[in-house]
Amino acid sequence: MTKVRRVERIVALTKMLMDMPGHLFSLGHFSNLFSTAKSTLSEDMVTIKQSMQEFGLGTVQTVSGASGGVKYVPYPSEERINHMLTQMAKQLSDPDRIIPGGFLYMSDVLFTPELMMQAGEIFSARFSSVTPDYVMTVETKGIPLAFSTARAFGLPLVIVRQGSKVTEGPSVSINYVSGSTKRIQTMSLPRRALPSGSKVLVIDDFMKAGGTAQGMIDLANEVGAQVVGTGVLIATIEPEKKLIEDYLALLMLHDVGQHTKMIDIRPVL
Amino acid sequence: MTKVRRVERIVALTKMLMDMPGHLFSLGHFSNLFSTAKSTLSEDMVTIKQSMQEFGLGTVQTVSGASGGVKYVPYPSEERINHMLTQMAKQLSDPDRIIPGGFLYMSDVLFTPELMMQAGEIFSARFSSVTPDYVMTVETKGIPLAFSTARAFGLPLVIVRQGSKVTEGPSVSINYVSGSTKRIQTMSLPRRALPSGSKVLVIDDFMKAGGTAQGMIDLANEVGAQVVGTGVLIATIEPEKKLIEDYLALLMLHDVGQHTKMIDIRPVL
Repeated sequence: MTKVRRVERIVALTKMLMDMPGHLFSLGHFSNLFSTAKSTLSEDMVTIKQSMQEFGLGTVQTVSGASGGVKYVPYPSEERINHMLTQMAKQLSDPDRIIPGGFLYMSDVLFTPELMMQAGEIFSARFSSVTPDYVMTVETKGIPLAFSTARAFGLPLVIVRQGSKVTEGPSVSINYVSGSTKRIQTMSLPRRALPSGSKVLVIDDFMKAGGTAQGMIDLANEVGAQVVGTGVLIATIEPEKKLIEDYLALLMLHDVGQHTKMIDIRPVL
Repeated sequence: MTKVRRVERIVALTKMLMDMPGHLFSLGHFSNLFSTAKSTLSEDMVTIKQSMQEFGLGTVQTVSGASGGVKYVPYPSEERINHMLTQMAKQLSDPDRIIPGGFLYMSDVLFTPELMMQAGEIFSARFSSVTPDYVMTVETKGIPLAFSTARAFGLPLVIVRQGSKVTEGPSVSINYVSGSTKRIQTMSLPRRALPSGSKVLVIDDFMKAGGTAQGMIDLANEVGAQVVGTGVLIATIEPEKKLIEDYLALLMLHDVGQHTKMIDIRPVL
């Protein structure tokens, strides 16, 4: 490939890095691709990093050594996180979302890629210190959020199935008590989906009493993996005492007023 | 915000455009953000577009008029599509993937963000002419693929639930016959998830006889929406005559040899 102008190379580099967050690219790889010296590419990376940081969009990390390279890490600024969560809370406060029974319709938000990609980047920033190997969720509504979180980390996703209908080889199942309905349910995972010794980040869309999250922790333990963090998009303020103590919620649902037609949901900042 | 160097502004623009494929940004928006004249930003867009196209990464489209602006459209080159599908077919050919019963274990591939984001961009390129309003799938394994496709288009995702356990307000259900097992099953959709008159792109991970895809077409019709295209990651070569005729598969599964331990899966190029 012939040499290209610096600015065009930087556009392509930005796109390639961003397409695979958390993925370590060697400078040699880019050097071949653009017929450009590694020292020049190092300067390009400094420029990309500066711009990302200045606009609160993320950063570029350099890993030194023979197996080193560069990787893009989404790292939204607190200002951007604040803005995103405030907007999301506002969108979820629309009284038309109240469903008979006092539930909140939120599938449209949970299935909107732009919003979930943003929430995934927030989780990846908040949980960066626990360095998970896998992101885990249980079907169905939390999948886009967990997938977006896995994407922001550059990690594989593991989806736990409800029931025991798994047809993917030997699997492990547990029974758990849904904290809110008090009903005994089953969740399953194919054995080969999660290697023993893995560090797992649990992500789900909604937490009330925490029974489902506790079930995922038990299931991970059952295959010799360890849950290093739990994140939910929305947690309810009641019950205050949940089955798991250590979790991070981005939004807190204080009240769904079926009669008052008022929804009180607030960002956790 | 103070003025920034051109190259830094272009990095930030690239990132912002790419974060929301299909999203129309007005030049006025960027003009405020960067304190830069619209004419200068137009030049920036030309540079970004040239670079994207040169490296087969996508393009930037300009929409003229008062409500116009610019948007990023992922558009992988045929060379890149060829490479991605060939790699995926190779990865899926590993004999360790054979599950008793002649099934193919592919959840790890279906739940790997990098791979699904690529496949989603391929679908968005292949189906760009049908201009859908929504991407639709049925739970569970096809969700990351459908979500990635929706993301590449900048569209919302609609997830059909299996069974009739929908607790999201009034819903519509249909019975369908799974083409391969011949069993009668139910799928449901909350009424408010898909407005009447919408154009829908159906995306799923796997198609054998096509019963599930036909069910989604019937369900869309039931709410007054219209399916304008159907895409699956993998279709089986048998049965040759499927319940739906018009579909696009990215990979074709010719054979899973339980005794020979050979998997024959090929990219459709």
